[in-house]
Amino acid sequence: MAESSKPILYSYFRSSCSWRVRIALALKNIDYETVAINLTKDGGQQFSGEFQALNPMKQVPALKIDGITIGQSLAIIEYLEETRPTPRLLPWDPKKRAQVRMVSDLIASGIQPLQNLSVLKQVGQENQLTWAQQAITSGFNALEQILQSTAGRYCVGDEVSMADLCLAPQVANADRFKVDLTPYPTISRINKSLLALEAFHVSHPCRQPDTPPELRA
Amino acid sequence: MAESSKPILYSYFRSSCSWRVRIALALKNIDYETVAINLTKDGGQQFSGEFQALNPMKQVPALKIDGITIGQSLAIIEYLEETRPTPRLLPWDPKKRAQVRMVSDLIASGIQPLQNLSVLKQVGQENQLTWAQQAITSGFNALEQILQSTAGRYCVGDEVSMADLCLAPQVANADRFKVDLTPYPTISRINKSLLALEAFHVSHPCRQPDTPPELRA
Repeated sequence: MAESSKPILYSYFRSSCSWRVRIALALKNIDYETVAINLTKDGGQQFSGEFQALNPMKQVPALKIDGITIGQSLAIIEYLEETRPTPRLLPWDPKKRAQVRMVSDLIASGIQPLQNLSVLKQVGQENQLTWAQQAITSGFNALEQILQSTAGRYCVGDEVSMADLCLAPQVANADRFKVDLTPYPTISRINKSLLALEAFHVSHPCRQPDTPPELRA
Repeated sequence: MAESSKPILYSYFRSSCSWRVRIALALKNIDYETVAINLTKDGGQQFSGEFQALNPMKQVPALKIDGITIGQSLAIIEYLEETRPTPRLLPWDPKKRAQVRMVSDLIASGIQPLQNLSVLKQVGQENQLTWAQQAITSGFNALEQILQSTAGRYCVGDEVSMADLCLAPQVANADRFKVDLTPYPTISRINKSLLALEAFHVSHPCRQPDTPPELRA
């Protein structure tokens, strides 16, 4: 019984949105099982009938927890925050919470969707790199400026928040797409601090059950 | 003094993200001033130095309120919900809240960003309609399926929620891009109910201070 009530995370090692949720689960010390959904194998396992029934968006992550299945990484994180509040991922001050959500949404709505796998397929092989770089640099230009006024050690002040759960995975995507991070000293500094944390380490794409051997670290 | 403390909404009549916030302000009966940012005039007024200083993302909406400026529509709505909780836009039950946020994020991260003005500029004039239709139908296919299990009179149950604030503006975009709504009976039914509500009526794109005379209704 205990076993069957463990949350199940449908995840892909390289998905930045899945990584956001893995960090939240690790920070909140929530034990869970991973079901790997390989976004590139078999034409994309997210398109299987079985997975579509679970998440009609055909995207990872999805989290089965407390008898429901939630899609959309930020909706999942907000649910975890409301039902497992310790340690908190949103500050108590509503104005600081607004900053955390603004930074999170900037990444989750303003950057990531424009450079995800399905969009890159649509723009075609030869344009993918330029397209992704454009989406990320445009977003990072804004983000760097915002963080200069909100950041302490992390994105908003000195406590890790939902915004940081979005930042590190997005910087990893920037690396993959060979974006020059020199113009973004604040983003780079915060990312470095985050990667040194245990929860970011264990949840990292290179350490997941579905990480291919050649990418493990 | 009273005058200067009124919230200021930086908005564009046709922006679906601005409309989301206008509905929230109307529902919560918050008096505010509109500063119109014309996204197409003067090469885009969102690119002015003055507006960039306010919102580095160079996007509307942005809301000046309580001494801070918040960008990103859902971050704004969550802030309004936390500081002006009546009437509520999120249900009290955490599982229902998760459904509301999932539907909101599906639209705000999964559909709207892929068919906004800046992306359509990038894909080029001749591909714009097909691109936008593809983004919307792909999202609506998922949304219709999800709503069939979450909806009552509105997106989640029988109370208007943040999800509805995302739905109606996205359906308006679908109309603009000539998406056939026949396959989406649940979306269409909810949208019709929403448009009959006063808060959706007064905040409608065809009734804003910056709506051009020929588009007013």
